[in-house]
Amino acid sequence: MDHGELGTFLLAFAAALLGGKLFGELAERIGQPAVLGELAAGVLLGPSLLGLVPLTTGILLVAEIGVLLLLFEVGLETDLTELIRVGGVAIVVAVVGMALPFLGGYLVTRASGFGALTAIFVGAALTATSIGITSRVLSEIGMLATREGQIILGAAVADDILGLVVLAVVSRLAATGSVGVGTALRAAGLSFAFLFLAIVVGVPLGRFLVRFVGRARVRGVLVAAAIAFALLGALGAAKAGSAAIVGALAAGLVLARTDRRHDIQKALEPIVDVFAPVFFVSIGAQVDVRYLNPVAANSRPALLLALALTVVGTVGKFAAGFAAWGKVRCSFIGAGMVPRGEVGLIFAQIGKESGALPEPVFVAVVLAVFATTFLTPPLLAALRPARSPAARPN
Amino acid sequence: MDHGELGTFLLAFAAALLGGKLFGELAERIGQPAVLGELAAGVLLGPSLLGLVPLTTGILLVAEIGVLLLLFEVGLETDLTELIRVGGVAIVVAVVGMALPFLGGYLVTRASGFGALTAIFVGAALTATSIGITSRVLSEIGMLATREGQIILGAAVADDILGLVVLAVVSRLAATGSVGVGTALRAAGLSFAFLFLAIVVGVPLGRFLVRFVGRARVRGVLVAAAIAFALLGALGAAKAGSAAIVGALAAGLVLARTDRRHDIQKALEPIVDVFAPVFFVSIGAQVDVRYLNPVAANSRPALLLALALTVVGTVGKFAAGFAAWGKVRCSFIGAGMVPRGEVGLIFAQIGKESGALPEPVFVAVVLAVFATTFLTPPLLAALRPARSPAARPN
Repeated sequence: MDHGELGTFLLAFAAALLGGKLFGELAERIGQPAVLGELAAGVLLGPSLLGLVPLTTGILLVAEIGVLLLLFEVGLETDLTELIRVGGVAIVVAVVGMALPFLGGYLVTRASGFGALTAIFVGAALTATSIGITSRVLSEIGMLATREGQIILGAAVADDILGLVVLAVVSRLAATGSVGVGTALRAAGLSFAFLFLAIVVGVPLGRFLVRFVGRARVRGVLVAAAIAFALLGALGAAKAGSAAIVGALAAGLVLARTDRRHDIQKALEPIVDVFAPVFFVSIGAQVDVRYLNPVAANSRPALLLALALTVVGTVGKFAAGFAAWGKVRCSFIGAGMVPRGEVGLIFAQIGKESGALPEPVFVAVVLAVFATTFLTPPLLAALRPARSPAARPN
Repeated sequence: MDHGELGTFLLAFAAALLGGKLFGELAERIGQPAVLGELAAGVLLGPSLLGLVPLTTGILLVAEIGVLLLLFEVGLETDLTELIRVGGVAIVVAVVGMALPFLGGYLVTRASGFGALTAIFVGAALTATSIGITSRVLSEIGMLATREGQIILGAAVADDILGLVVLAVVSRLAATGSVGVGTALRAAGLSFAFLFLAIVVGVPLGRFLVRFVGRARVRGVLVAAAIAFALLGALGAAKAGSAAIVGALAAGLVLARTDRRHDIQKALEPIVDVFAPVFFVSIGAQVDVRYLNPVAANSRPALLLALALTVVGTVGKFAAGFAAWGKVRCSFIGAGMVPRGEVGLIFAQIGKESGALPEPVFVAVVLAVFATTFLTPPLLAALRPARSPAARPN
């Protein structure tokens, strides 16, 4: 790394940390989750406004480390037995929550006068819930360990895996104009098989690792080994055609079943505190504020389409919450499924590059992804069941 | 970052963590500092042997974060008043410790039949002590807070600043064949002025920051703000023409004078435990083992020159320890000045690119830099004064 690159990186990292924490604190003071403030800080510091946090390789790498360690931490806080118990409900919620927004996005785009391929891309971009945002909010408001929290988390995982299958199918469709059912089924099978295998193999492996490093004398062996385990989980998931974050989550689920769970959590906490906000700031930094100007004539069609997509995207996921059964607050589950994140943005990017998404449609999809993300934290905080445990202390 | 790059990065990060901690533990078991094991792990995992830790942008970035946070932690553990008290001794030790290796390197290279420019580059590459390695070892053996430890640290800082001045002069010499005294003096003045100003301005600024974030409600504001402070210190130092690590160290010295010192240290510890080893592994990974084969005819002249440079480099720095006065163990101070690190490698790199260093001389310089680095941990451990406090518990 040369001198100039290092300077840009140091400034961006420091700005993301200070801005993220300052705005997070402000959000907290007005009764909102801190993550909302971090997203807003990203918009302000990002390339389209202050330009203090450019989306360089360095910042994206720190953001990637942040989201992986966040999901690892979420896994550590999650009871695998409980997650399996809600598995059936979670998968139904995930499937309904993908079908409705897909259909809504497709119909809205067609009704706006665009072709079928464009409409399929828009629909696909609205399918995947962001595990990162949803789990961070659940953790912040102390709802991660509840039945609703577990259903949302389970559904978000299922949905991330299914979202990647949809991505594979749609990418192929954009490239060749056709797609085989075999390819789609194979991708889905691989991803679920990875998660199953990772947990079956991971539990004894994690126990062995923890016992092995328990005898170490040098500083920080446990936390370093635990993080290496999470990175390898992420790598395995990515290699199996799933998302890296799913692997980091699986690593956390597995190490939660060892007797060093609390020691790992304690050492991990400050690391996540430093790296995870950079991820949320980097998501906010991807918003181009020029498209938010409603009086500019050329941004109006994009804004209208964005509004319509936000409505169908929100209503579709929200309705999916009511596919859940048992003694749960369905509206809370629905709200937890609303945020789209990086996967939606990846869809939009591929659609734009392949020519399937014309510029205004691309902008509308990106705006809708952000709108759902910004809507979720206050929505979840408002719909949180009263019987929930107290928010975790800071 | 694309899929393949992410995979390479995840594997390299995990391998550096596991390998570094495993070899660190082995080193500890045979009575050596853990950092020696991390360097050895780097040689094994690096591109010239197993290739599991390639020197990609991602790994170098994590390594850079690691060394910055390590120096920040060293600053937090250091008493500024004591450092100023030993300032005079430290500067004398630094100047003698640069002059002797420079002279030795120059003479050995001339005696081997090379020209003056080549010899100046070799001499310059042997001048700068590695703060990272030396402070890590001092911390590990519980000697950082002693008078000897403070002199070594002070001399290493002075030496790093002077080393950058030498680098500026030598680079200019390589580019133009001549150099102005004004440029050299200006660079030196700027670097020292930065350090002085950073501390004068930094102390009240650090106190304000700590008081301001003390009222925060969200998780991890203190550690995030402290790290942002360190990153901005590093940025300021780099902009002032000094080394980024000097700025991170200054930030630590400054925050050590606040009442949240121990809270910052506690939260920083696991972060340093995870990131710093990646730095030492990445240093080890830069060793090309092909040149270590003594029976290969073409590596013999390089090996002989490397041996001679290692001797003059070690003896010169060791002798500089005896320039210290007061009730101190001079041999320990001398040993602490021996390791060369990244600055030496930067000299070698520039010399090679500018044509001033032919291939065998370049290889010899790199080998000598590594030999001094590998020699230091056992040397310091062996020469540690008996009256020192116990090594810090893990």
